[in-house]
Amino acid sequence: MDRETALAVVKEQLTDHRYVHTVGVMETAIKLADRYGADRKKAELAAIFHDYAKFRPKDEMKSIIEEQHMEKALLEFNSELWHAPVGAYLVEKEAGIKDPEILDAIRYHTSGRVGMTLLDKIIYLADYIEPGRHFPGVDEVREMAKMNLDQALVQSVKNTIVFLMKKNQPVYPDTFYTYNDLANKL
Amino acid sequence: MDRETALAVVKEQLTDHRYVHTVGVMETAIKLADRYGADRKKAELAAIFHDYAKFRPKDEMKSIIEEQHMEKALLEFNSELWHAPVGAYLVEKEAGIKDPEILDAIRYHTSGRVGMTLLDKIIYLADYIEPGRHFPGVDEVREMAKMNLDQALVQSVKNTIVFLMKKNQPVYPDTFYTYNDLANKL
Repeated sequence: MDRETALAVVKEQLTDHRYVHTVGVMETAIKLADRYGADRKKAELAAIFHDYAKFRPKDEMKSIIEEQHMEKALLEFNSELWHAPVGAYLVEKEAGIKDPEILDAIRYHTSGRVGMTLLDKIIYLADYIEPGRHFPGVDEVREMAKMNLDQALVQSVKNTIVFLMKKNQPVYPDTFYTYNDLANKL
Repeated sequence: MDRETALAVVKEQLTDHRYVHTVGVMETAIKLADRYGADRKKAELAAIFHDYAKFRPKDEMKSIIEEQHMEKALLEFNSELWHAPVGAYLVEKEAGIKDPEILDAIRYHTSGRVGMTLLDKIIYLADYIEPGRHFPGVDEVREMAKMNLDQALVQSVKNTIVFLMKKNQPVYPDTFYTYNDLANKL
């Protein structure tokens, strides 16, 4: 699917604000793909579609998680996590994207996973550092991302865990396991 | 077992520095037991014996973990974690302490666990805030411990996770699950 078609498809699904974010993720993901030797077309498509399910009603997402036998633990954690695996499902079903690498990068862009692929890492990180993001620590990760993808990634995962802990919010186990996996490889 | 006998037994097992720490944990645990309505005698004994295995050779601890079918994942994480479950085992075997509540408080004093008992919490926290402890954040937790045991406990667990992440060290999953369990109950 070419960029213009993909962008037109997701524009229908998103608020204007989230569409601007998506374009930022796309541009950032392409830069990271070029820098770290990933497939730039896959990075582009995964980035464009990463938030495809962001504004689906919670009930619909919950039903899909149950009917598609996705990880049940998701339902016990913040619903902000749901749009990633549900998005991977809907992007295949509704937009006809079949590439498993692209679908995985969408599926794991919020939680991370043990054994993240290069494309997973690029989409996770692009989502964190795209130019529209403004929060404490993001500039440090942006700088790291110019030098070392894994270092930037582990810093973004740590920041996310600390952010949630400061609010006394539980952290989805896959995010912890992602941190441990990256820490063990550093 | 009376306090003097127990202290004499552990003194044999510990360095002078660690013995002083143990006495600090004992005094702190008794205060917390009185404050939060736990059995002060159990708190005293669990505190006295909490570091019983601290200076056992790593090989011996590893063998015990394997032979006693303790959680294998322990061996993949920092050996600092091993003395807690190994201590619970040796305290029963060598010092004849049979009380399962005391043994559990020893077993989980480093990792925590989901569903910590009042005694578990007291020993974990006393170990963290005893007067000989000096590190950033400990005074804040000491103050919290005067008001709210669970709030102090979750802060100490969060501090531990942040401390490990700053060093890019993996975090034992039970510690993450302890945090999530406490966060869900706050």
